[in-house]
Amino acid sequence: MKSKPNKQKLRFGLPKGSLQEATIEKMAKAGWNVSVSSRSYIPYVDDDELEIRMIRAQEISRYVEHGYLDCGITGHDWIVENGSKVHEVGEFLFSKATRKPTRWVLAVPEDSPIRSAKDLNGKRIATEVVNLTKKYLRKHGVKAEVEFSWGATEVKAHELVDAIVEVTETGSSLRANNLRIVDELLVSTPRLISNHDSWKNNWKRQKIETLALLLKGAMEAEAKVGLKMNIEEKNLQSLLTSLPALRRPTISNLSQQGWVAVETIIDEHVVRELIPQLKAAGAEGIIEYPLNKVVY
Amino acid sequence: MKSKPNKQKLRFGLPKGSLQEATIEKMAKAGWNVSVSSRSYIPYVDDDELEIRMIRAQEISRYVEHGYLDCGITGHDWIVENGSKVHEVGEFLFSKATRKPTRWVLAVPEDSPIRSAKDLNGKRIATEVVNLTKKYLRKHGVKAEVEFSWGATEVKAHELVDAIVEVTETGSSLRANNLRIVDELLVSTPRLISNHDSWKNNWKRQKIETLALLLKGAMEAEAKVGLKMNIEEKNLQSLLTSLPALRRPTISNLSQQGWVAVETIIDEHVVRELIPQLKAAGAEGIIEYPLNKVVY
Amino acid sequence: MKSKPNKQKLRFGLPKGSLQEATIEKMAKAGWNVSVSSRSYIPYVDDDELEIRMIRAQEISRYVEHGYLDCGITGHDWIVENGSKVHEVGEFLFSKATRKPTRWVLAVPEDSPIRSAKDLNGKRIATEVVNLTKKYLRKHGVKAEVEFSWGATEVKAHELVDAIVEVTETGSSLRANNLRIVDELLVSTPRLISNHDSWKNNWKRQKIETLALLLKGAMEAEAKVGLKMNIEEKNLQSLLTSLPALRRPTISNLSQQGWVAVETIIDEHVVRELIPQLKAAGAEGIIEYPLNKVVY
Amino acid sequence: MKSKPNKQKLRFGLPKGSLQEATIEKMAKAGWNVSVSSRSYIPYVDDDELEIRMIRAQEISRYVEHGYLDCGITGHDWIVENGSKVHEVGEFLFSKATRKPTRWVLAVPEDSPIRSAKDLNGKRIATEVVNLTKKYLRKHGVKAEVEFSWGATEVKAHELVDAIVEVTETGSSLRANNLRIVDELLVSTPRLISNHDSWKNNWKRQKIETLALLLKGAMEAEAKVGLKMNIEEKNLQSLLTSLPALRRPTISNLSQQGWVAVETIIDEHVVRELIPQLKAAGAEGIIEYPLNKVVY
Amino acid sequence: MKSKPNKQKLRFGLPKGSLQEATIEKMAKAGWNVSVSSRSYIPYVDDDELEIRMIRAQEISRYVEHGYLDCGITGHDWIVENGSKVHEVGEFLFSKATRKPTRWVLAVPEDSPIRSAKDLNGKRIATEVVNLTKKYLRKHGVKAEVEFSWGATEVKAHELVDAIVEVTETGSSLRANNLRIVDELLVSTPRLISNHDSWKNNWKRQKIETLALLLKGAMEAEAKVGLKMNIEEKNLQSLLTSLPALRRPTISNLSQQGWVAVETIIDEHVVRELIPQLKAAGAEGIIEYPLNKVVY
Amino acid sequence: MKSKPNKQKLRFGLPKGSLQEATIEKMAKAGWNVSVSSRSYIPYVDDDELEIRMIRAQEISRYVEHGYLDCGITGHDWIVENGSKVHEVGEFLFSKATRKPTRWVLAVPEDSPIRSAKDLNGKRIATEVVNLTKKYLRKHGVKAEVEFSWGATEVKAHELVDAIVEVTETGSSLRANNLRIVDELLVSTPRLISNHDSWKNNWKRQKIETLALLLKGAMEAEAKVGLKMNIEEKNLQSLLTSLPALRRPTISNLSQQGWVAVETIIDEHVVRELIPQLKAAGAEGIIEYPLNKVVY
Repeated sequence: MKSKPNKQKLRFGLPKGSLQEATIEKMAKAGWNVSVSSRSYIPYVDDDELEIRMIRAQEISRYVEHGYLDCGITGHDWIVENGSKVHEVGEFLFSKATRKPTRWVLAVPEDSPIRSAKDLNGKRIATEVVNLTKKYLRKHGVKAEVEFSWGATEVKAHELVDAIVEVTETGSSLRANNLRIVDELLVSTPRLISNHDSWKNNWKRQKIETLALLLKGAMEAEAKVGLKMNIEEKNLQSLLTSLPALRRPTISNLSQQGWVAVETIIDEHVVRELIPQLKAAGAEGIIEYPLNKVVY
Repeated sequence: MKSKPNKQKLRFGLPKGSLQEATIEKMAKAGWNVSVSSRSYIPYVDDDELEIRMIRAQEISRYVEHGYLDCGITGHDWIVENGSKVHEVGEFLFSKATRKPTRWVLAVPEDSPIRSAKDLNGKRIATEVVNLTKKYLRKHGVKAEVEFSWGATEVKAHELVDAIVEVTETGSSLRANNLRIVDELLVSTPRLISNHDSWKNNWKRQKIETLALLLKGAMEAEAKVGLKMNIEEKNLQSLLTSLPALRRPTISNLSQQGWVAVETIIDEHVVRELIPQLKAAGAEGIIEYPLNKVVY
Repeated sequence: MKSKPNKQKLRFGLPKGSLQEATIEKMAKAGWNVSVSSRSYIPYVDDDELEIRMIRAQEISRYVEHGYLDCGITGHDWIVENGSKVHEVGEFLFSKATRKPTRWVLAVPEDSPIRSAKDLNGKRIATEVVNLTKKYLRKHGVKAEVEFSWGATEVKAHELVDAIVEVTETGSSLRANNLRIVDELLVSTPRLISNHDSWKNNWKRQKIETLALLLKGAMEAEAKVGLKMNIEEKNLQSLLTSLPALRRPTISNLSQQGWVAVETIIDEHVVRELIPQLKAAGAEGIIEYPLNKVVY
Repeated sequence: MKSKPNKQKLRFGLPKGSLQEATIEKMAKAGWNVSVSSRSYIPYVDDDELEIRMIRAQEISRYVEHGYLDCGITGHDWIVENGSKVHEVGEFLFSKATRKPTRWVLAVPEDSPIRSAKDLNGKRIATEVVNLTKKYLRKHGVKAEVEFSWGATEVKAHELVDAIVEVTETGSSLRANNLRIVDELLVSTPRLISNHDSWKNNWKRQKIETLALLLKGAMEAEAKVGLKMNIEEKNLQSLLTSLPALRRPTISNLSQQGWVAVETIIDEHVVRELIPQLKAAGAEGIIEYPLNKVVY
Repeated sequence: MKSKPNKQKLRFGLPKGSLQEATIEKMAKAGWNVSVSSRSYIPYVDDDELEIRMIRAQEISRYVEHGYLDCGITGHDWIVENGSKVHEVGEFLFSKATRKPTRWVLAVPEDSPIRSAKDLNGKRIATEVVNLTKKYLRKHGVKAEVEFSWGATEVKAHELVDAIVEVTETGSSLRANNLRIVDELLVSTPRLISNHDSWKNNWKRQKIETLALLLKGAMEAEAKVGLKMNIEEKNLQSLLTSLPALRRPTISNLSQQGWVAVETIIDEHVVRELIPQLKAAGAEGIIEYPLNKVVY
Repeated sequence: MKSKPNKQKLRFGLPKGSLQEATIEKMAKAGWNVSVSSRSYIPYVDDDELEIRMIRAQEISRYVEHGYLDCGITGHDWIVENGSKVHEVGEFLFSKATRKPTRWVLAVPEDSPIRSAKDLNGKRIATEVVNLTKKYLRKHGVKAEVEFSWGATEVKAHELVDAIVEVTETGSSLRANNLRIVDELLVSTPRLISNHDSWKNNWKRQKIETLALLLKGAMEAEAKVGLKMNIEEKNLQSLLTSLPALRRPTISNLSQQGWVAVETIIDEHVVRELIPQLKAAGAEGIIEYPLNKVVY
């Protein structure tokens, strides 16, 4: 890193707004502390080679394409909606609570006669993703009016328009509004994207790849835990055979004769099923511990 | 799990209100992500076999007894107050800050002449646990008027009634109100309870036991930490002998000749006394790390 | 600990106000749970040998000097400003976000003609640290009027006074106010200080040293992480040679022939540079995990 | 007021909780400034002859009956629920937004087969007003189980019980929970009540009557406004005849020949219908102004 | 709906979001109490002939044009931006604090070379009002790229685009962002608009006019106050002559010989200049009182 | 106002912090709308001749004395504490709730042996007003140590010092801390103060006097109300004689023969005693209305 020119900087766009806090937390887990001040629009980051900009998720791909940003994190949905020409470096899963990706769906009131895209002919649709929706209509050979919705789209489906195209994860907000999902237009996850020229620059590309590696490692770690247990050596083989979830465990010898320590990294959501099975297989002193990063 | 019928569900009641956030956090540590929406009274949980209901701690035992809920988490106090006939599956300690259980106590103003249950004859007592209080009076052969208090019970002791029966942990709120504790009526901890019929159902019982095992594991982990250190092999025996707190440590050989790594799980609150002793006994590179679950 | 008199207590002052929450969190990590009630000015702590007092950081050194407190945590700046005669037991670094110490700086508007201490002759300076500022002026042989500022000092620099002496970490608040740093008067970090007499008392000194050891261990742990990886034995030596950051790793034999597990404790902020290098050197299954305490 | 004994005091209970702020505001409009401190359970009031106590609305009638309070403001519903023997001094209408009284209603899910009280036989009902509900069942000769609800009663109607008795004003919260009102048990408004003995004491009675007069005046004023307009004398009579709402207006002569000023106090909610009519009848310069008190 | 009686309703759109609270307050002053529940998207209003809908100000004109709403309150800016064909019933001034209308302005960084519309050729402009901006560019014969801004537009002017078209009242937010106003595109005030068909319906038109009359009256009252004073009759004429602000005062005779009471309605913002003059002219006992409505 | 130079400005300091909101509200009532932005330290005011600065109450007199401010509003206490040489233009009473001025008192724990100033010899006193306290000690010929308190002074009296000098209005906070008032050092009310030179400048003086007149008028109006009633002419004289509180009422003739309207401005806090007497004296249709300003 010694011969790098003094002023080399990577301009990195993070999503402002509802995802802001979660993103900054991820960055911290990856190893970069970002602090946003209410007095300045340029956040502080403890890396002289980075310049952070907080920008609406909807607009990041536009500014990466134009080169104002070297790279950024935004949703696949907005890259498609904007039709931005950018290099996609990696995909991340942010939402731990449900582990489900974001979906843009066509929804109508429970009692609407609309049952499929075909029924939309001549109707009026409100949405924040006008381009995505028009593309969907074209694909189905349907003619309908699409209007940009400034917000509270779910409420509109009951009176103001015939259908909406709205974002959802678990569908619970749609259900609470007595809306029925007719079709799914797009499944979206967060992406790290790069400007095409920045990607061709060696220093920038390497910096972006390091960011991607560590962000990936931090996000992997959110969905994984460390699991450690002691077991008699004679029971070990049957434990490993019957439990393929224990992928490539580290087995270390204990000073106590005939016992080994088994340690592995595992998806957190299988632990609740695994632990009763481990106990049944003779494991003792099972502990689960949290991880900051997992890099294979 | 393959032959289980499609629709098998366990209805599980969690305490709404002041304990809600802590309980949901515990559930997450145990491995179940629950999310409560302001728009729906049925929380989301990432387990198709569970149906969560948020219900006041005071009422959970009533609905478990009646079978509306298969099981639930509530305090021992409210099970007793309601006189509910339920199966108690397990006991948990929630409050980390003080590690003291909840106590229902008889309290009076500092300068009250009341010194024991006997002095309550003909007096008026305000409390949220009317049945518990009446039982206590009967036990002591005392006749007094017990009135249900809708809240702010501590303030009443000074003017509106002669004594109160109120809940406390450290007693600091009572002291701040210049009240004196006369007697203790009940010590209470959170319990996992089950409806008697649900407990007889094999599938439900197994599901409840899994929940109990993992909740227990998560709560154990809150009061425990992992401790790891290196020590010369020659000092090991005297370390282990003099420090019985280091129960069943895992000893692993290091590649460095004559040194071993000692690792153990230990009550977090003894660490502050133990570490100086470990250093004195020759331990080096002592680290303490957090745990998610501990299952023996 | 058996022969210690019944009532032996250590009175310990913690900073009230903006640092309060962070300090209580540190205490918890060190092993002491402190809870501050809005109804009582004496916080609860789960150690019978401690009495906590929450006092402004500005005043703690004064009360430690007078003996009202046996010891306390406060900033080096206020010890100097108050000219307090106390024993300094240890130094801590609190602020994780930036890992930069607090600095008291002389600042003026961007377009001010003031370029150095010399230019302050006959000027008016507002500050919360009047003594520190006067000392600085004396050192430079400058005569200027120093007035105590009750707050919002940064705003005053533009109209009400000629310069200010103000506290900053990253300087971003000063920049946002269009102020320029002229000079640095003092760099300050949190300190554990003791009254001189308390330090001579054996029991108190030992108690203070235990507090210092565990607070230090907790703070060390904030800036450090555990790193664990598997590597083929044949690659181990070159890994260790090329990466001096891996100070004194624990090498344990794995049951898998020819592979070892390498584990070490490392500064969290070098991890983002280290992990790509570890991968390049042949490490696999790299995980990073959080620590509660690190005691060498 | 001169011969009144030095220490004569009236102890006055105001409802704590959701009505607290509104009540204190009403007291201020009536002429008594009450300030509640978080540090003291006895509020300050700028009248040496009053002692205020903030008590749950549910409990005020109990303490007025027992004589701990001389008088208090509480709802008619809780007086009936408690079966308290108190003197009712006056009735007030608090809620300006809707000008509808509080109603306790029997409600069931939209699709419940329960259509009238008769259908409740053998059912289970949750409510905060257990006595009121039992009385209602007795009146209809129905046997059903009534259980005390600690809160969130509306949610229970869908699963935990068959029906609820719950409080409502506009019914919108019931509708939002998909509940249907089956019957109305009680209509309730706030009352000023007095202990029977206090009412017999001349000084206390006079003090209570003054409070009642001014509270009444303040509440009247909330629902009324002053209306003032100029009109030609020749149009006056037809204006007054056609608009009986202009009850007893004050007519004053203007210096401008042939014109008079008409001023009246009027219900605020008729103004929106009246003003267009006044304009049509020739009124000019119509102004509406707010009132603090109206005492006939 | 033609024979009105029972079911005649007017659907009225109010702006949701930042103007919502102010609008509901205005409605209350006009005589209609609207209450928005978090559980229902249809607000309650105490008038059976009205149906309120809360809709983004940006979208109201669109839904009025289409006939989903009979009428609504929105800004002139969004009517123009949407190109909506609606009937404008009246104009209101909402913002009391500054009494300045909303302005959409072209702004650039302080040090930008852009000095007029002409300089925008080939530049990139971010704005929420894309149509308004394009129209402006056409008018000046300028070709520039206009991109929709999802928010935080002011921040973009420094790096992401060359200029912005943004809304402002006092310009202080622009100044705080170091932006310079180059030109003004549109001055906007709130309007009451009606659907063209609804306006032709007699019942609806009359209802809308009543709403307009009373909203106007309520808003007039916000900017006006009542002023009342006593003066000797001999000084009256010179008072009235020298102070034309006292438009058409009501003069009433007092019982005190030679004195009259002068009362008038006056713009609140001239009072601070008028009162010293009134005193100088011999007025006594000057009082200013607040108004709810002023209808000429 | 015609010959006033273009740029004539009055710089006016208002107290920042706890009094800020109340002061801005008073300014608005007086006729000047001030709005404080979080982005700019110079508030907006709708008067080109004014420049507002928000400054701590403790510091305003200092900057008025030095001429940085032409005038300002601050407490008498801080003028004395700072020993500032300024012209006092007027005194205001801000606090409506209690109508009691601010008092600086010497306070000690309930059970302290300190009973008067004399008992302070050799003691330690904590206070925010060090100069005021030293002056008080000198006056009583007492030698004691006075230390500046950075806050939470009341808590210190129990352990850290022997006595405090603290500010109070009703004394309820002191009582809640179990402190006893020993003596009163100073009674303080808000003052409008002017720099001596500014006061000699005709234009500035006139501007300050107008501000004083209208602020005074606005504050008078807070403690006063308008009272209006009808009464038969024959009862008028006895009404006026027996009720001197009805100072200089306006009597106007009604068109109804034999009746007059009586209108007066009166202290709000006497209304609660007056209205019952007015009714007894034959008054009818009594209304009380709020005032914005009262200028005699």
